[in-house]
Amino acid sequence: MTRIFIWLVSLFPFLIFAQTISPATDEETLKEIYTTALVKNQGYKWLEELTEMGPRLTGSENATKAVYHFQKIADSLGFKTFLQPVTVPQWVRGEAEEANYKTTEGKIVLNPCALGGSIATPKNGLTAPLFEITSFEQLDTVTTELEGKIAFYNIPMNPAFINTFFAYSSSAKQRYVGALEASKKGAVGVVIRSLSATINDFPHTGSMTYKGADVKIPAMAISTLDAEQLSTNLNADPSLEFFMKMNCEGKDSVTSYNLVAEIKGSEKPEEVIVLGGHIDSWDLGTGAHDDGAGCVHSLEAIWLLKQMDLLPKRTVRVVFFMNEEFGLNGAKVYAKESKKENINHVIAIESDAGGFSPRGISVVAPDSLVARVREFRSLFEPYGLHQFTETGSGADISQLYSKDLVMLGLRPDNHRYFDIHHSAADVIESVSPRELETGSATLAAFIYLLDKYDVVAK
Amino acid sequence: MTRIFIWLVSLFPFLIFAQTISPATDEETLKEIYTTALVKNQGYKWLEELTEMGPRLTGSENATKAVYHFQKIADSLGFKTFLQPVTVPQWVRGEAEEANYKTTEGKIVLNPCALGGSIATPKNGLTAPLFEITSFEQLDTVTTELEGKIAFYNIPMNPAFINTFFAYSSSAKQRYVGALEASKKGAVGVVIRSLSATINDFPHTGSMTYKGADVKIPAMAISTLDAEQLSTNLNADPSLEFFMKMNCEGKDSVTSYNLVAEIKGSEKPEEVIVLGGHIDSWDLGTGAHDDGAGCVHSLEAIWLLKQMDLLPKRTVRVVFFMNEEFGLNGAKVYAKESKKENINHVIAIESDAGGFSPRGISVVAPDSLVARVREFRSLFEPYGLHQFTETGSGADISQLYSKDLVMLGLRPDNHRYFDIHHSAADVIESVSPRELETGSATLAAFIYLLDKYDVVAK
Repeated sequence: MTRIFIWLVSLFPFLIFAQTISPATDEETLKEIYTTALVKNQGYKWLEELTEMGPRLTGSENATKAVYHFQKIADSLGFKTFLQPVTVPQWVRGEAEEANYKTTEGKIVLNPCALGGSIATPKNGLTAPLFEITSFEQLDTVTTELEGKIAFYNIPMNPAFINTFFAYSSSAKQRYVGALEASKKGAVGVVIRSLSATINDFPHTGSMTYKGADVKIPAMAISTLDAEQLSTNLNADPSLEFFMKMNCEGKDSVTSYNLVAEIKGSEKPEEVIVLGGHIDSWDLGTGAHDDGAGCVHSLEAIWLLKQMDLLPKRTVRVVFFMNEEFGLNGAKVYAKESKKENINHVIAIESDAGGFSPRGISVVAPDSLVARVREFRSLFEPYGLHQFTETGSGADISQLYSKDLVMLGLRPDNHRYFDIHHSAADVIESVSPRELETGSATLAAFIYLLDKYDVVAK
Repeated sequence: MTRIFIWLVSLFPFLIFAQTISPATDEETLKEIYTTALVKNQGYKWLEELTEMGPRLTGSENATKAVYHFQKIADSLGFKTFLQPVTVPQWVRGEAEEANYKTTEGKIVLNPCALGGSIATPKNGLTAPLFEITSFEQLDTVTTELEGKIAFYNIPMNPAFINTFFAYSSSAKQRYVGALEASKKGAVGVVIRSLSATINDFPHTGSMTYKGADVKIPAMAISTLDAEQLSTNLNADPSLEFFMKMNCEGKDSVTSYNLVAEIKGSEKPEEVIVLGGHIDSWDLGTGAHDDGAGCVHSLEAIWLLKQMDLLPKRTVRVVFFMNEEFGLNGAKVYAKESKKENINHVIAIESDAGGFSPRGISVVAPDSLVARVREFRSLFEPYGLHQFTETGSGADISQLYSKDLVMLGLRPDNHRYFDIHHSAADVIESVSPRELETGSATLAAFIYLLDKYDVVAK
């Protein structure tokens, strides 16, 4: 026993030396990344600061203030930062919207919200009968039924999809082109069922378009709960008159900014890993999940690697994109400027699916590189990531698409995402610190592995 | 083309016949189970009813009322039901607890809660200096430091554990035996840091023991936020005096019940599949996750199979166990009665880890059967289940343990579990309908597969 002990002690200097120069195993490194995130909670603290500033609607002062605020933070962390001017639309909601209708049992008062980009109703509101549309196919058969009426789109997100994003995609048309299509049939206004996966009392806003419309008509969303009730009441009394009032308006475009925060690579500075989220939000909540989470995920991922002295050999850029919600202007500017400056992006990563418990990653890349990303799968199992899909990886980074680029999107659990999405429920209270932090750690771990093992096109 | 068409038509009667007698593929069956759960939301509706009844503390009228309520529901669904009398302890919280202390900046008022089973303080409260304990090891070194003082256990749940249940287990001692151990060193009261994985403002209660104590001293929990602040203030002023007041008390034991709801098996009625959760809850919230979720998971799993005409060939029993929280009395009675009646349990399933997004299943069974359960893994991947562990499967079913029994526990995502566990935050608003429903569907799918493929000991 004593001899073994002496032998062990004699090895001590070498053991300590070995530890400082040999790389820890990937398992150990990932463990340290996740632990640091969960212990320090740096991303959650940043998200608290961000949401305390209020909503960050594109074109608002708040949105630009948030950019300045995080530029200061990134500067203090040793990033080289710059702002990219982005011309963005400005739309303001105005006073609280109104909607109501009468039934035999009294007046039903709803809690509606204008869709982003909608025109106002006439000053004193608009009253008209409703025509309910329960599927897109039904709209094709409509001839004169919508004339002079308010189109009531009541097309639920299909609950049978396990991935709520698929359910969202398949019913989002009512919000985006509902007014456009109804106006062609003579409708005077639009009410949509909120794009929410459950029955809840929040109206959920979101963008819409008038592109190609001869006549613009106002459009609002009502909660899924209100939509269910309205449908029942409308069946009982098809002649009921619906009142809607909104005084939102589009204003002149303004200049806002993308934030770009860079750390030059030590060995391959000309190759760039970009990661980001969008800093603008809707105005009903404070964009905690959409997409405050993605912004802090991105910044924290690099912060974690820097803390642990694991910065990539390639240049890393954290980008807070401005105006994803109203048309990806920031992403387009970033892509255009990058092209002009011949920036060689080799990896692009986006987090814009909320700050929930990470379940996996989506990858878009040449087949051989997708296979290499999949090789990391077992490393992430202990942290609950198991879904490695080849679906799209994010709207903002999609502007950088090239066939050689390795594009990754964080895929958190999405059961709850559309409960809060674009509504007053998207606030810090709906974010779990631990779930958020494991998202940041996941991005850090992927950057570490992709860079270390050169999972990039040659 | 025409010939092929005629050939196909000629096969139609056979195809239709084949479909009615041949089993649908397991993939299709699972899809239908999950879809039915997500579309119908039956479990969530039951959970709304249950939580509207209020808290269900062991020994309270409410707890027994909840049993009666679900007996009626089970009866109406065609189960054969019966109640098993269970003698349970009765402890009442009394008036709202008080705790405060003075600092140079004024009086700090906390929002504490008595630990379950604690004695009261003297009528007008108790004031004493504090002694902070930050690890269990430290307690071993204490000689006279606790005499006449209030022991302040401030041992955080280790955030580095990805699975928060491990963090809970490793620090739960302060709650369960904190008062017992401190009383041996002369302490006059106990304040513990809530067993919660994040910094939040809820005090979290839970059971404690005086077993073997010469002197019983009162014990309360304060929120993790309050514990952090108290620690800071105590460092600044080690002589600060802490005031605590509680008038909780233990009363005479009362009789309550387990609910047993049974459907006889069509082919193997003598083999029993039991599944359940516990119907009692703590009194601060309404036990939506702990363990209302587990009760409705269990009942809904069988409801789903019945809806789809997929009831097992074996007998199924849904059990709502009474009094998990204060000592597993219901589970012990169920196990004893089952033994007396020679009930042959072949599979036991428990859900007592919340109504969050399911991540996997834990299995305790003979090795060959564990391997067979694992073969189902790919079937569950589309629904987000990927963790098949061999950790324990549940406290209530543990009373039924035999080496031949196949025991399964539902393992939902647990990042948020200890944010709400045993606190006023454990209410229906913290439950996502979609997450809850996928849990019920998961139990239904496992019962379907285990029964169909006879994954039981011979």
